Amino acid sequence: MKYRISGNVIRRLPRYIRQLDLLAASGVEKVSSGELGAQMSLTASQIRQDLNCFGGFGQQGYGYNVRQLRDGIAQALGMDEKLGAIVIGAGNLGRALISNFRFEDCGVTLLSAFDVSPDLVGKAINGTLVRHANDIESFVKLNRVDVAVLTLPQSEADAIAEALVKLGVRGIWNFTGIDLDVASADVTVENVHLSDSMLTLGYYLRSGDKE
Amino acid sequence: MKYRISGNVIRRLPRYIRQLDLLAASGVEKVSSGELGAQMSLTASQIRQDLNCFGGFGQQGYGYNVRQLRDGIAQALGMDEKLGAIVIGAGNLGRALISNFRFEDCGVTLLSAFDVSPDLVGKAINGTLVRHANDIESFVKLNRVDVAVLTLPQSEADAIAEALVKLGVRGIWNFTGIDLDVASADVTVENVHLSDSMLTLGYYLRSGDKE
Repeated sequence: MKYRISGNVIRRLPRYIRQLDLLAASGVEKVSSGELGAQMSLTASQIRQDLNCFGGFGQQGYGYNVRQLRDGIAQALGMDEKLGAIVIGAGNLGRALISNFRFEDCGVTLLSAFDVSPDLVGKAINGTLVRHANDIESFVKLNRVDVAVLTLPQSEADAIAEALVKLGVRGIWNFTGIDLDVASADVTVENVHLSDSMLTLGYYLRSGDKE
Repeated sequence: MKYRISGNVIRRLPRYIRQLDLLAASGVEKVSSGELGAQMSLTASQIRQDLNCFGGFGQQGYGYNVRQLRDGIAQALGMDEKLGAIVIGAGNLGRALISNFRFEDCGVTLLSAFDVSPDLVGKAINGTLVRHANDIESFVKLNRVDVAVLTLPQSEADAIAEALVKLGVRGIWNFTGIDLDVASADVTVENVHLSDSMLTLGYYLRSGDKE
């Protein structure tokens, strides 16, 4: 089954997943659009509009079945189709992601990490082997790598991204803080620009404006 | 001087800063809305509309003065008013931020880090001292702390956030992956939900849709 959903709705779906997981963990079996809206600071009509995109999980006067809705959203996000990922750069940030980020919860299997430091190559971090960066090409040719997580220095980011795309990697999770120069229609780059986030926070604090 | 700018424009301003910094570093002195738009995948009219919000940095037929525009945006973001920040939790992610994130470039001074681990307390990371978490209260009372960066385990996040807000901290940069239960009109929470980012990337990869 294939859905087409607007970008804004896509970006809200993971929040629904988190909230529904919380409800399920608390033993809640059904929830109305009004309740869910109050919990998520959205209007009931916004909730209904969002969830309408992928069909009738809600029933008038009953609400949504928490588990069914969660599974429906997960299916819409394609979380049942596993993606393979590699982390490039096993410095502090790379290690933080390898150790703490729940790739599996996002439907992603972390296959390997890569670095150049002799202190790291050959070691395992939380069960993930760090290979030498020279071995990226052979690894990508032998394994299905959908996503490259870039946690390497900025100066190397563009060259590595270009090489990965040439090798067929279609997804880049970019933590380098620079906008990558990967201009291919087939490639999706998701940027985690932490300075944008901090500057936005700073603006609201300094100005006293509300979001 | 005080500006009121819409949330969407705010979130784009840091991107302008990054692009203008790149241009300035390459020795470029002026740029037209059309050129800037092409570089940032925005239309010229979108650029003019965004930048119009805080006054006439552009001149018809000449373009924007790169440095003046950069400084104007920085002023609009309030980056010249320094904020003080502390990092709570000096695990991998906390250490990654302390070591690599350029707080100063965002107009923020990193004052201290806090943790409970005997291996970390009393040590300095990239010049930032790690104090014991028991000392947070006295530290916040003695120093101007505007922003708390939460890189601690989820199980402790809500209690710490509540305590910080009671102590007068008004900004929270939340890396814990949970939506905090801080319901105060005075507090701004900026969430970095990495799983939302990965799920969004995964959706586009799996579906073949374009953003």
